[in-house]
Amino acid sequence: MSRMASTKSRPAESRPTEDPRSQVPARSAAPVRLARPAPEPIYEGDFVLGEPLELDCGQKLANPTLHYAVYGRLDAARSNAVLVCHALSGSALVGSWWPELFAPEIEDRLVDTRRDCIVCINLLGSCYGSTGPSSVDPRTGRVYGPDFPLLSIRDNVRAQARLLDSLGIHRLRLAIGGSIGGMQALQWSIDFPDRVERAVVIGVAPLSAMGLALNHTQRMAIVNDPDWNGGNYLTHRQPRRGLSLARQIATFSYKSPDLFEERFARRPNRNGEQPWLHEPGANGLLGGRFDIAGYLDYQGEKFPDRFDANAYLAILRMMDNWDPVRDAGGVERAFSAIRARLLLVGISSDLLFPARDVRQLAESMRSVSVHADYREMVTAHGHDAFLAEQAELVRLLHSVE
Amino acid sequence: MSRMASTKSRPAESRPTEDPRSQVPARSAAPVRLARPAPEPIYEGDFVLGEPLELDCGQKLANPTLHYAVYGRLDAARSNAVLVCHALSGSALVGSWWPELFAPEIEDRLVDTRRDCIVCINLLGSCYGSTGPSSVDPRTGRVYGPDFPLLSIRDNVRAQARLLDSLGIHRLRLAIGGSIGGMQALQWSIDFPDRVERAVVIGVAPLSAMGLALNHTQRMAIVNDPDWNGGNYLTHRQPRRGLSLARQIATFSYKSPDLFEERFARRPNRNGEQPWLHEPGANGLLGGRFDIAGYLDYQGEKFPDRFDANAYLAILRMMDNWDPVRDAGGVERAFSAIRARLLLVGISSDLLFPARDVRQLAESMRSVSVHADYREMVTAHGHDAFLAEQAELVRLLHSVE
Repeated sequence: MSRMASTKSRPAESRPTEDPRSQVPARSAAPVRLARPAPEPIYEGDFVLGEPLELDCGQKLANPTLHYAVYGRLDAARSNAVLVCHALSGSALVGSWWPELFAPEIEDRLVDTRRDCIVCINLLGSCYGSTGPSSVDPRTGRVYGPDFPLLSIRDNVRAQARLLDSLGIHRLRLAIGGSIGGMQALQWSIDFPDRVERAVVIGVAPLSAMGLALNHTQRMAIVNDPDWNGGNYLTHRQPRRGLSLARQIATFSYKSPDLFEERFARRPNRNGEQPWLHEPGANGLLGGRFDIAGYLDYQGEKFPDRFDANAYLAILRMMDNWDPVRDAGGVERAFSAIRARLLLVGISSDLLFPARDVRQLAESMRSVSVHADYREMVTAHGHDAFLAEQAELVRLLHSVE
Repeated sequence: MSRMASTKSRPAESRPTEDPRSQVPARSAAPVRLARPAPEPIYEGDFVLGEPLELDCGQKLANPTLHYAVYGRLDAARSNAVLVCHALSGSALVGSWWPELFAPEIEDRLVDTRRDCIVCINLLGSCYGSTGPSSVDPRTGRVYGPDFPLLSIRDNVRAQARLLDSLGIHRLRLAIGGSIGGMQALQWSIDFPDRVERAVVIGVAPLSAMGLALNHTQRMAIVNDPDWNGGNYLTHRQPRRGLSLARQIATFSYKSPDLFEERFARRPNRNGEQPWLHEPGANGLLGGRFDIAGYLDYQGEKFPDRFDANAYLAILRMMDNWDPVRDAGGVERAFSAIRARLLLVGISSDLLFPARDVRQLAESMRSVSVHADYREMVTAHGHDAFLAEQAELVRLLHSVE
């Protein structure tokens, strides 16, 4: 029996969307299911740098494109600009994936499309419009693929600054993001101290050894797929199985044991599979799945419809490598130039970026006289809480000084 | 560039054995590095059941072989028998992988080869001498491979009882094990209440949803490897890359964030790779590794030398499915027949079997008047502590009533 057959012989299942972000069209970032329509950008388009972007690694990225979206209008004084930075698999369309952040119900909220001009820029290295491994290298006329250069968060921030220059935005009232988005918001405060008034950095710190371990096994899941082919694959032949497994590993690192226990416990898969029964052929060794396994398979299987494996690898490295203290050679040199008022938010059940690490990052910044507050989301949702519990996050941020 | 080339182009490394179990000969369970010679069994051999073993799943396993080892001699009253049960990748040679448990330094210790007759039996489904997926099915003359039937912990315990019968051991002074070994020790107390005086069950409870998730991704890592071929592979062509990745995922679930942070932090790999530099070709997307990644690769790469992928899958299912309360239809029916004095040991930093779950298991047994004590190993070593901190475990068990 072939491995494909052994997988396909399982009963089909249609899994209800217990995860609000599970209804995903092909190749667009996962939108949140909303009671109201998602906020619409007033502009969505591309900015192309007029010259090569010099990268931290010493390479150059030829005239990269930044895809971005704008919500709300810049005021005459250009004083109402907010930069929202997205996480690993996000896109410029922040209205789709973080709608509650600037939904209009709460007065005097941190971000509000009626008051602010919100800009969100797709990461370089990603696959939602900005230049990434699946883009064509203008110097060769061929897709970058494995030859895409090593990018850093700093490289992204430098390119984003050029885009904001082009929009006439010199100063940000606020830079905000969760996970890799938080890395960007903090890096903005470090690299452009005069351009950031306030930054909110959620669920992030330099990755610990365990976080690096989680990312490494995801990387190996992709590399082990023969369809990855050293990074040289056609778009329609991408390493789906490897990318799916990477997403499964990521999924459990984004959630928490308590959340899984509440949602799935030891129940058998909802499509009627029975883990305790013998099944003939290769399924004898695999078995009927538990519900949590059905959930992970479902999350994994749909991910390659909307994300590119090489982009995933590129962003994993960006995430692994982000380490402002190492870059600068010490806490003092890393942080003391910051002028923004910072708020760091830890997530109590975060396995990927433990709240303790976020709190310590805030403490290290305060040790060099940076205004760096710390708050904690107490939640069972794990790292994903900044997306899964948006209303709670908005309440937490509502009264920020 | 091929995926093999992209991996092989990395600098070679010789990794010091920071893990005491990392010096592993081909196809024998990982021994612990010892200051003294490992205890030697007085007997190591096979027991073959005279008839088929009826399995919980309704199938039969034709005349299975149990490979086992004996340390110390049975006394005239046959009152000094101790059954040690091994974990996922262990073997019958408990003297090699748990030597400190019965090393002679401490007087009046829980287990002592000078006093006890210790029996350890390789699991059915494993690959260290007992019948498993790589054994020949006597009914067909061919290797079982994917046709190996679904085995349970109860099936194993039932077969082990037949072996002990053959040795003239009716009653166990003690049954003890960690992880899957603890499942067996507890199952012995449930299924043969008259035959177990005392049981020590370490770092185990029915797997939580997160534990099932960790196992599921390991299963997928193997299934995704084309060399798995639906379970039909030749011994020398086993799915090494998939089994290696499974072992990497297992490794981080056996350890703890604090241990990794102490040992590896964010240091680059000890062989000189540099995560922050651009590398040409596919390595540009993979990058120089951090030390934790080098460690995981090393643990993964050597594992297929000593373990069989189908055996790994078979034992994962045994582990997933173990659930005495479900089997019996309730706590009362599951546990109330137990006559043994039980000690459950939780491991404070255990990610795979959280200490809380172990404590709750003890509490549920006490609720039906079972003598079930609970103690906790306070350690940063994670699940592996029962192997990595043997001296501490011996001290914890020393004064057990």
